[in-house]
Amino acid sequence: MSYRFEAGRIYRMPTHFGPAPGPRQMPDGVTRDPKRSPRRLSVAASFLTDPVLLEQHLPDGFTLAGEPVVTVEFHHMTDIDWLAGRGYTMIWVSWPVTFRGQRDRATGKFLAVVWENLADPIITGRDEIGHPKLYAEIAEPRRWNGAQICTAGWMGFRFLELEVSQLQDADPHRQATASDGTLMLKYTPRTGAWGETEVCQVTLTPAADPDNHIEQRQTGVGTVRFHKAGWSELPTLHHVVNALAALPVVEARGGTVTLSRGGKSYRDQRVLT
Amino acid sequence: MSYRFEAGRIYRMPTHFGPAPGPRQMPDGVTRDPKRSPRRLSVAASFLTDPVLLEQHLPDGFTLAGEPVVTVEFHHMTDIDWLAGRGYTMIWVSWPVTFRGQRDRATGKFLAVVWENLADPIITGRDEIGHPKLYAEIAEPRRWNGAQICTAGWMGFRFLELEVSQLQDADPHRQATASDGTLMLKYTPRTGAWGETEVCQVTLTPAADPDNHIEQRQTGVGTVRFHKAGWSELPTLHHVVNALAALPVVEARGGTVTLSRGGKSYRDQRVLT
Amino acid sequence: MSYRFEAGRIYRMPTHFGPAPGPRQMPDGVTRDPKRSPRRLSVAASFLTDPVLLEQHLPDGFTLAGEPVVTVEFHHMTDIDWLAGRGYTMIWVSWPVTFRGQRDRATGKFLAVVWENLADPIITGRDEIGHPKLYAEIAEPRRWNGAQICTAGWMGFRFLELEVSQLQDADPHRQATASDGTLMLKYTPRTGAWGETEVCQVTLTPAADPDNHIEQRQTGVGTVRFHKAGWSELPTLHHVVNALAALPVVEARGGTVTLSRGGKSYRDQRVLT
Amino acid sequence: MSYRFEAGRIYRMPTHFGPAPGPRQMPDGVTRDPKRSPRRLSVAASFLTDPVLLEQHLPDGFTLAGEPVVTVEFHHMTDIDWLAGRGYTMIWVSWPVTFRGQRDRATGKFLAVVWENLADPIITGRDEIGHPKLYAEIAEPRRWNGAQICTAGWMGFRFLELEVSQLQDADPHRQATASDGTLMLKYTPRTGAWGETEVCQVTLTPAADPDNHIEQRQTGVGTVRFHKAGWSELPTLHHVVNALAALPVVEARGGTVTLSRGGKSYRDQRVLT
Repeated sequence: MSYRFEAGRIYRMPTHFGPAPGPRQMPDGVTRDPKRSPRRLSVAASFLTDPVLLEQHLPDGFTLAGEPVVTVEFHHMTDIDWLAGRGYTMIWVSWPVTFRGQRDRATGKFLAVVWENLADPIITGRDEIGHPKLYAEIAEPRRWNGAQICTAGWMGFRFLELEVSQLQDADPHRQATASDGTLMLKYTPRTGAWGETEVCQVTLTPAADPDNHIEQRQTGVGTVRFHKAGWSELPTLHHVVNALAALPVVEARGGTVTLSRGGKSYRDQRVLT
Repeated sequence: MSYRFEAGRIYRMPTHFGPAPGPRQMPDGVTRDPKRSPRRLSVAASFLTDPVLLEQHLPDGFTLAGEPVVTVEFHHMTDIDWLAGRGYTMIWVSWPVTFRGQRDRATGKFLAVVWENLADPIITGRDEIGHPKLYAEIAEPRRWNGAQICTAGWMGFRFLELEVSQLQDADPHRQATASDGTLMLKYTPRTGAWGETEVCQVTLTPAADPDNHIEQRQTGVGTVRFHKAGWSELPTLHHVVNALAALPVVEARGGTVTLSRGGKSYRDQRVLT
Repeated sequence: MSYRFEAGRIYRMPTHFGPAPGPRQMPDGVTRDPKRSPRRLSVAASFLTDPVLLEQHLPDGFTLAGEPVVTVEFHHMTDIDWLAGRGYTMIWVSWPVTFRGQRDRATGKFLAVVWENLADPIITGRDEIGHPKLYAEIAEPRRWNGAQICTAGWMGFRFLELEVSQLQDADPHRQATASDGTLMLKYTPRTGAWGETEVCQVTLTPAADPDNHIEQRQTGVGTVRFHKAGWSELPTLHHVVNALAALPVVEARGGTVTLSRGGKSYRDQRVLT
Repeated sequence: MSYRFEAGRIYRMPTHFGPAPGPRQMPDGVTRDPKRSPRRLSVAASFLTDPVLLEQHLPDGFTLAGEPVVTVEFHHMTDIDWLAGRGYTMIWVSWPVTFRGQRDRATGKFLAVVWENLADPIITGRDEIGHPKLYAEIAEPRRWNGAQICTAGWMGFRFLELEVSQLQDADPHRQATASDGTLMLKYTPRTGAWGETEVCQVTLTPAADPDNHIEQRQTGVGTVRFHKAGWSELPTLHHVVNALAALPVVEARGGTVTLSRGGKSYRDQRVLT
């Protein structure tokens, strides 16, 4: 007898061994404390760039919202509940947009690309959330000479450097900009019919994250550098990295270093139409 | 102006930076030689198991075909063209099945799970082919004391050991069993509607692979061991590993070590209905 | 003109490119703050074992001091100044001894073996201090289900598991046992005259470490497990691991989890005779 | 009872668990076949440089012999017997010298620095042979577009790129230059007496290696590039890398790609005086 999918349970490939454990589906008997997990060191820097170039990387239905400011964030996470206390690091590249769909409209952060140094959350994020996650080797952020230094590469080719220096303590509870949340495009190609689309959906992470508590926040001078690569150096990433490297830094817009705890599982992720 | 998808080109998340380079879409100007790439050292071992247990890991529409023999294969690949000459290793777990769909019918190898030690082919394979790929740390197969030894783990927990010993040279051009190819289930969960299905398709890799040339083949005694794990040890894999560890080894069915060159890009992958 | 060694500067192989930067010799112009660097998460567990077996792993001139209690400590360090803010993890295995030399006498911790997951401090420690350092893959200690969990392996073979559970807050400023410090044996074989000794010295790290400040301390139930290995699995470590695995756990002696900052560079290391 | 060193057996730190297994001391019962192990893919490139700069990196007693040609070699080894069939990669940087000691005189290759991507042979090589070995992340050499490409880095900073292109088959059995072998300086600093020397010896690997058999040899155009680094990027290596990056490439002197099997254990290593 072949198996049946259990109703109401999340599956991922391979589906043949039961529902898939992950951030949005913990095993029975394992309790989580979203106020404590994960612990997160976030290092971010922003820069003003050319709006015309930036728009070329927006899907249909999206427009820039306000200034064309690109933000790159490293999130070094530990104490992750769904990994039984292990950690990993993610990099977010985003800019502010408005999405106007047939029914929905939302303004917030457009998550253009994510890099992570662990394959497991790449798989869960791409499949369940629509996170545009790719793999990178990411060093744990290091503090040296009063600066927080972050780097990322692939097979030994360093393609991203971010630094926040001249750090000063800041109010951890500053008012965030009004936002509907984080927007992204979930996409799956069609097998066999090459060039056709199987899934193409705008998905939204609503802004609210009530269990996330900021413990410490510093601001400083931020610098971001993407390094252009040949195809032979980054055969799966060069189109992404080179597009970002081609964005001019018209003006630096500062950086932050934030220490926080807790957060949601993205079970509130939803499709916009 | 937002971007448009170029017709006839394969995209993957993130789609915002142009068509995605990969095994089925090389950059313009890069020529490939499918008779030379990749170079592949394959180490495989099989065992007879309990058909009732095995069937519980077959999706709807599939039945066992012939004896319930599980085969585990390590493919250590180098000289991969779409990675500009780099390599990685994949592990295949499969058994023989027949699929009967509404229109299609095929008998071949059911690819139940794949592990790979590089995230990039995990992403391309899941999205474009429906390969049920997960991540593992995989040692390069080593030859010691007349045996070929393969191991795999996750974050330092070794969950799989495979060994082929008492190796003897064999005819590289033996007649393969008649087969329509390799069958798998492409699956994507629906975002927001947790527990629902976005994509669920049977896909087939046709058996023919004319550019693959076997250079050397040896046969021997094969042993396979999956190690049961607690959730805390393999939080994303324990359901898969424990299901495989629970399959009894009723009888060992031998092993092979094969050296080959060349192979197809899986552009012939198609959906069965 | 060949080079000359600069007087008063520490060299290591290769000596041909100038004095060697390291924990005891920072480059000019780089200031260090020994009260802040490194940050250290220490997880330790102890057990009573068989004194006769333990003595077989003591060099000439050493005797057990008090109870034969083996302590295994994981030190996960970040913010290390001589690595420009990077980190690594070390494992210490020790038991209490007295050394009686021709001139010197000291009682303290006998550091029998050290594993680290970074080659650079292995080299500096072996050459300059006499630290008996070997390489291991060491996971960052993780906290799960109220326990602190540590593991170590080599090429995917996990040879050590340590866990401290049922954690309770403890006084960070407890009185340490009176000790002269940490004792070890610096040894280098003679090239060409195989089996002969080039360097064999007892060295001591004096106990005082005034810049080390304990921020938090917890105590709990500790368990330690070394896994016996065949030569083929741990070809460079099996003699060490198997000797430790053969020590019976007569009685568990508790564990601790400690968070601290600051520490000395071991410039006070000296040879006993 | 403390332990005694067994006569005629090689020890390394930690000495407390018996003689140390390694390339020059295999466990009893393990037989080796020096004609088969290791398998070695060697990629080398040379360049003519400034003799005055090069001499500044020669120890006392050494002079340049003939043209100041620096050779950088990557040796990717697999099937290593003393690692039970595993492999690793080493990088050699050398130039031709004559050593004149009080008693001995030898002309050959001066091995200025070695990098390896495995700590275990770094330890055995430094201690037993006097190999000036340091750690680096080293990619498996890859073949792309008719060139063999090699890279090395440390914590994601790529400091060395070597490429041999326009490859043509060459006679594998060419006559090697007359040489007494490979010369290096074994050095250990003195503990406690910082700046003093404990061991400083010239050691020699005699040229003969009768079990090494070259299977294939290609020659081509070679390029070598060392990338200058700040201390913060390469805190343990910058003095070495920057000295090599400062050597001008006066003229490229070609490259080779060699496939070979077998080799000696360096038991013939000896001290010159």
